[in-house]
Amino acid sequence: MLEVRALTTDAVIEFDGEVLLLKRNHPPFEASWVLPGGFVEQDETARDACIRETGEEVGVDVSVEEFIGLYDDPDRDKRGNVSAAYRCSIRNNQTPTPREEATQVEMFDPNNLPNMGFDHRQIVADALSAYRSSQ
Amino acid sequence: MLEVRALTTDAVIEFDGEVLLLKRNHPPFEASWVLPGGFVEQDETARDACIRETGEEVGVDVSVEEFIGLYDDPDRDKRGNVSAAYRCSIRNNQTPTPREEATQVEMFDPNNLPNMGFDHRQIVADALSAYRSSQ
Repeated sequence: MLEVRALTTDAVIEFDGEVLLLKRNHPPFEASWVLPGGFVEQDETARDACIRETGEEVGVDVSVEEFIGLYDDPDRDKRGNVSAAYRCSIRNNQTPTPREEATQVEMFDPNNLPNMGFDHRQIVADALSAYRSSQ
Repeated sequence: MLEVRALTTDAVIEFDGEVLLLKRNHPPFEASWVLPGGFVEQDETARDACIRETGEEVGVDVSVEEFIGLYDDPDRDKRGNVSAAYRCSIRNNQTPTPREEATQVEMFDPNNLPNMGFDHRQIVADALSAYRSSQ
Protein backbone atom coordinates (compact mmCIF):
# COMPACT_ATOMS: atom_id res chain seq x y z
CA MET A 1 0.00 0.00 0.00
CA LEU A 2 1.38 3.31 -1.10
CA GLU A 3 1.57 5.75 1.79
CA VAL A 4 -0.08 8.75 0.20
CA ARG A 5 -0.50 12.18 1.77
CA ALA A 6 -4.09 13.36 2.26
CA LEU A 7 -5.09 16.91 1.38
CA THR A 8 -6.56 19.12 4.09
CA THR A 9 -7.35 22.81 4.10
CA ASP A 10 -7.03 25.64 6.64
CA ALA A 11 -8.65 29.06 6.81
CA VAL A 12 -6.96 32.25 8.00
CA ILE A 13 -9.87 34.53 8.88
CA GLU A 14 -8.88 38.08 9.72
CA PHE A 15 -11.30 40.63 11.10
CA ASP A 16 -10.41 44.08 12.45
CA GLY A 17 -6.72 43.14 12.47
CA GLU A 18 -7.28 39.99 14.51
CA VAL A 19 -7.15 36.32 13.50
CA LEU A 20 -9.77 33.69 14.37
CA LEU A 21 -8.51 30.54 16.12
CA LEU A 22 -10.27 27.63 17.76
CA LYS A 23 -9.11 25.46 20.63
CA ARG A 24 -9.09 21.79 19.54
CA ASN A 25 -11.02 19.21 21.54
CA HIS A 26 -9.23 16.12 20.17
CA PRO A 27 -5.75 14.84 19.26
CA PRO A 28 -3.39 15.61 17.69
CA PHE A 29 -2.68 18.96 19.33
CA GLU A 30 -5.66 18.63 21.68
CA ALA A 31 -6.19 21.89 23.63
CA SER A 32 -3.91 23.81 21.25
CA TRP A 33 -5.20 26.71 19.21
CA VAL A 34 -5.50 26.10 15.48
CA LEU A 35 -7.07 27.48 12.33
CA PRO A 36 -10.46 26.15 11.25
CA GLY A 37 -10.05 23.44 8.63
CA GLY A 38 -10.04 19.74 7.86
CA PHE A 39 -9.98 17.06 5.19
CA VAL A 40 -10.90 17.81 1.60
CA GLU A 41 -13.51 15.25 0.57
CA GLN A 42 -13.88 13.51 -2.79
CA ASP A 43 -16.70 15.68 -4.13
CA GLU A 44 -15.22 19.10 -3.35
CA THR A 45 -12.30 21.39 -4.08
CA ALA A 46 -9.99 22.62 -1.34
CA ARG A 47 -11.81 25.99 -1.43
CA ASP A 48 -15.16 24.23 -1.03
CA ALA A 49 -13.77 22.28 1.95
CA CYS A 50 -12.41 25.45 3.52
CA ILE A 51 -15.87 27.03 3.46
CA ARG A 52 -17.60 23.84 4.68
CA GLU A 53 -15.17 23.16 7.53
CA THR A 54 -15.30 26.74 8.77
CA GLY A 55 -19.08 26.52 8.91
CA GLU A 56 -18.96 23.20 10.77
CA GLU A 57 -16.34 24.26 13.30
CA VAL A 58 -17.04 27.89 14.07
CA GLY A 59 -20.49 28.50 12.58
CA VAL A 60 -19.76 31.23 10.06
CA ASP A 61 -19.98 31.48 6.28
CA VAL A 62 -16.75 32.68 4.71
CA SER A 63 -15.67 33.73 1.28
CA VAL A 64 -12.25 32.57 0.12
CA GLU A 65 -10.08 35.53 -0.82
CA GLU A 66 -6.63 34.19 -1.66
CA PHE A 67 -4.49 31.05 -1.78
CA ILE A 68 -1.72 31.38 0.82
CA GLY A 69 0.29 28.26 0.08
CA LEU A 70 0.62 24.50 0.17
CA TYR A 71 2.02 23.34 3.51
CA ASP A 72 3.71 20.01 2.92
CA ASP A 73 6.68 19.67 5.27
CA PRO A 74 6.68 15.92 6.12
CA ASP A 75 7.10 16.82 9.82
CA ARG A 76 4.10 19.19 10.01
CA ASP A 77 1.58 16.49 10.96
CA LYS A 78 2.45 12.97 12.05
CA ARG A 79 -0.52 11.66 10.03
CA GLY A 80 1.20 12.92 6.86
CA ASN A 81 -1.49 15.42 5.90
CA VAL A 82 -0.76 18.35 3.59
CA SER A 83 -2.70 21.62 3.89
CA ALA A 84 -3.85 24.07 1.24
CA ALA A 85 -4.30 27.32 3.20
CA TYR A 86 -6.56 30.19 2.17
CA ARG A 87 -7.16 33.69 3.45
CA CYS A 88 -10.89 34.07 4.06
CA SER A 89 -13.32 36.70 5.25
CA ILE A 90 -16.54 36.34 7.23
CA ARG A 91 -19.72 37.13 5.32
CA ASN A 92 -22.56 39.16 6.79
CA ASN A 93 -20.94 40.07 10.13
CA GLN A 94 -21.74 36.70 11.67
CA THR A 95 -20.40 35.92 15.15
CA PRO A 96 -18.16 32.82 15.39
CA THR A 97 -19.18 30.20 17.97
CA PRO A 98 -17.49 26.90 18.85
CA ARG A 99 -19.16 23.92 17.21
CA GLU A 100 -17.60 20.61 16.00
CA GLU A 101 -14.01 19.95 17.15
CA ALA A 102 -13.77 23.24 19.07
CA THR A 103 -14.11 24.06 22.76
CA GLN A 104 -13.47 27.79 22.31
CA VAL A 105 -13.26 30.31 19.49
CA GLU A 106 -11.43 33.60 19.91
CA MET A 107 -9.93 36.41 17.90
CA PHE A 108 -6.21 37.01 18.53
CA ASP A 109 -3.79 39.82 17.87
CA PRO A 110 -1.38 38.32 15.29
CA ASN A 111 1.51 39.79 17.28
CA ASN A 112 0.40 37.97 20.41
CA LEU A 113 -0.68 34.49 19.37
CA PRO A 114 -1.25 31.62 21.84
CA ASN A 115 0.37 28.18 21.73
CA MET A 116 -0.62 26.84 18.31
CA GLY A 117 -0.79 23.38 16.78
CA PHE A 118 0.70 22.05 13.53
CA ASP A 119 2.46 24.78 11.49
CA HIS A 120 -0.49 27.14 11.87
CA ARG A 121 1.58 29.95 13.35
CA GLN A 122 3.62 29.96 10.13
CA ILE A 123 0.47 29.91 8.00
CA VAL A 124 -0.87 32.97 9.85
CA ALA A 125 2.45 34.78 9.42
CA ASP A 126 2.50 33.98 5.69
CA ALA A 127 -1.13 35.03 5.25
CA LEU A 128 -0.68 38.39 6.92
CA SER A 129 2.56 39.04 5.08
CA ALA A 130 0.86 38.36 1.71
CA TYR A 131 -2.15 40.42 2.73
CA ARG A 132 -0.08 43.40 3.79
CA SER A 133 2.08 43.34 0.70
CA SER A 134 -1.05 43.49 -1.48
CA GLN A 135 -2.45 46.57 0.27
CA MET B 1 -13.80 5.69 6.41
CA LEU B 2 -13.37 9.26 5.32
CA GLU B 3 -12.86 9.54 1.58
CA VAL B 4 -9.81 11.76 1.52
CA ARG B 5 -8.13 13.14 -1.58
CA ALA B 6 -4.50 12.07 -2.11
CA LEU B 7 -1.89 14.61 -3.17
CA THR B 8 0.04 14.03 -6.39
CA THR B 9 2.40 16.28 -8.29
CA ASP B 10 3.03 17.04 -11.97
CA ALA B 11 5.98 18.64 -13.73
CA VAL B 12 5.79 21.01 -16.70
CA ILE B 13 9.25 20.83 -18.25
CA GLU B 14 9.85 23.33 -21.01
CA PHE B 15 12.96 23.30 -23.20
CA ASP B 16 13.54 25.42 -26.31
CA GLY B 17 9.88 26.40 -26.33
CA GLU B 18 8.63 22.81 -26.23
CA VAL B 19 7.01 20.82 -23.43
CA LEU B 20 8.00 17.30 -22.35
CA LEU B 21 5.21 14.71 -22.27
CA LEU B 22 5.19 10.96 -21.80
CA LYS B 23 2.76 8.39 -23.16
CA ARG B 24 1.26 6.39 -20.27
CA ASN B 25 1.49 2.60 -20.27
CA HIS B 26 -1.30 1.98 -17.71
CA PRO B 27 -4.81 3.15 -16.77
CA PRO B 28 -6.33 5.62 -16.23
CA PHE B 29 -5.67 7.42 -19.50
CA GLU B 30 -3.54 4.55 -20.84
CA ALA B 31 -1.86 5.56 -24.14
CA SER B 32 -2.65 9.24 -23.53
CA TRP B 33 0.10 11.83 -23.24
CA VAL B 34 0.63 13.27 -19.76
CA LEU B 35 3.08 15.26 -17.68
CA PRO B 36 5.62 13.34 -15.57
CA GLY B 37 4.39 13.05 -11.99
CA GLY B 38 2.83 10.87 -9.35
CA PHE B 39 1.94 10.43 -5.70
CA VAL B 40 3.61 12.50 -2.99
CA GLU B 41 4.89 10.06 -0.37
CA GLN B 42 4.91 10.49 3.40
CA ASP B 43 8.57 11.47 3.72
CA GLU B 44 8.72 14.12 1.03
CA THR B 45 7.30 17.46 -0.04
CA ALA B 46 5.41 17.91 -3.30
CA ARG B 47 8.56 19.50 -4.80
CA ASP B 48 10.66 16.50 -3.69
CA ALA B 49 8.11 14.16 -5.29
CA CYS B 50 8.13 16.17 -8.52
CA ILE B 51 11.90 15.74 -8.81
CA ARG B 52 11.80 12.03 -7.85
CA GLU B 53 8.93 11.12 -10.20
CA THR B 54 10.49 12.92 -13.14
CA GLY B 55 13.71 10.96 -12.58
CA GLU B 56 11.82 7.67 -12.35
CA GLU B 57 9.62 8.25 -15.39
CA VAL B 58 11.79 10.08 -17.91
CA GLY B 59 15.32 9.73 -16.51
CA VAL B 60 16.28 13.37 -16.01
CA ASP B 61 17.13 15.50 -12.99
CA VAL B 62 15.05 18.65 -12.79
CA SER B 63 15.07 21.75 -10.68
CA VAL B 64 11.70 23.12 -9.58
CA GLU B 65 11.29 26.71 -10.73
CA GLU B 66 7.76 27.76 -9.80
CA PHE B 67 4.47 26.59 -8.31
CA ILE B 68 1.82 26.68 -11.04
CA GLY B 69 -1.26 25.79 -9.02
CA LEU B 70 -3.27 23.23 -7.10
CA TYR B 71 -5.52 21.23 -9.45
CA ASP B 72 -8.42 19.95 -7.40
CA ASP B 73 -11.52 19.78 -9.57
CA PRO B 74 -13.36 16.68 -8.26
CA ASP B 75 -13.83 15.50 -11.87
CA ARG B 76 -10.17 15.74 -12.87
CA ASP B 77 -9.32 12.15 -11.81
CA LYS B 78 -11.84 9.45 -10.97
CA ARG B 79 -9.53 8.29 -8.15
CA GLY B 80 -9.99 11.68 -6.45
CA ASN B 81 -6.36 12.74 -6.62
CA VAL B 82 -5.34 16.40 -6.39
CA SER B 83 -2.20 17.68 -8.13
CA ALA B 84 0.31 20.32 -7.10
CA ALA B 85 1.90 21.34 -10.41
CA TYR B 86 5.34 22.91 -10.81
CA ARG B 87 7.27 24.41 -13.70
CA CYS B 88 10.64 22.65 -13.86
CA SER B 89 13.80 22.77 -15.92
CA ILE B 90 16.18 19.96 -16.90
CA ARG B 91 19.61 20.12 -15.29
CA ASN B 92 22.83 19.48 -17.20
CA ASN B 93 21.33 19.03 -20.69
CA GLN B 94 20.27 15.45 -20.02
CA THR B 95 18.24 13.62 -22.66
CA PRO B 96 14.83 12.31 -21.51
CA THR B 97 14.17 8.61 -22.08
CA PRO B 98 11.04 6.57 -21.26
CA ARG B 99 11.38 4.60 -18.03
CA GLU B 100 8.70 3.63 -15.47
CA GLU B 101 5.09 4.16 -16.58
CA ALA B 102 6.09 5.56 -19.99
CA THR B 103 6.22 3.98 -23.44
CA GLN B 104 7.41 7.15 -25.17
CA VAL B 105 8.77 10.56 -24.25
CA GLU B 106 8.61 13.48 -26.64
CA MET B 107 8.85 17.25 -26.71
CA PHE B 108 5.76 19.01 -28.11
CA ASP B 109 5.01 22.45 -29.43
CA PRO B 110 2.57 23.88 -26.82
CA ASN B 111 0.42 25.16 -29.68
CA ASN B 112 0.12 21.67 -31.15
CA LEU B 113 -0.37 19.29 -28.22
CA PRO B 114 -1.52 15.67 -28.63
CA ASN B 115 -4.50 14.00 -26.92
CA MET B 116 -3.74 14.48 -23.21
CA GLY B 117 -4.95 12.78 -20.03
CA PHE B 118 -6.38 14.28 -16.84
CA ASP B 119 -6.37 18.12 -16.90
CA HIS B 120 -2.78 18.24 -18.05
CA ARG B 121 -3.54 20.37 -21.11
CA GLN B 122 -4.86 23.04 -18.74
CA ILE B 123 -1.81 22.74 -16.49
CA VAL B 124 0.49 23.28 -19.49
CA ALA B 125 -1.54 26.32 -20.59
CA ASP B 126 -1.41 27.81 -17.08
CA ALA B 127 2.32 27.11 -16.76
CA LEU B 128 3.20 28.79 -20.03
CA SER B 129 0.91 31.72 -19.32
CA ALA B 130 2.59 32.30 -15.93
CA TYR B 131 6.04 31.83 -17.47
CA ARG B 132 5.40 34.29 -20.27
CA SER B 133 3.91 36.91 -17.99
CA SER B 134 7.03 36.79 -15.79
CA GLN B 135 9.44 37.41 -18.72
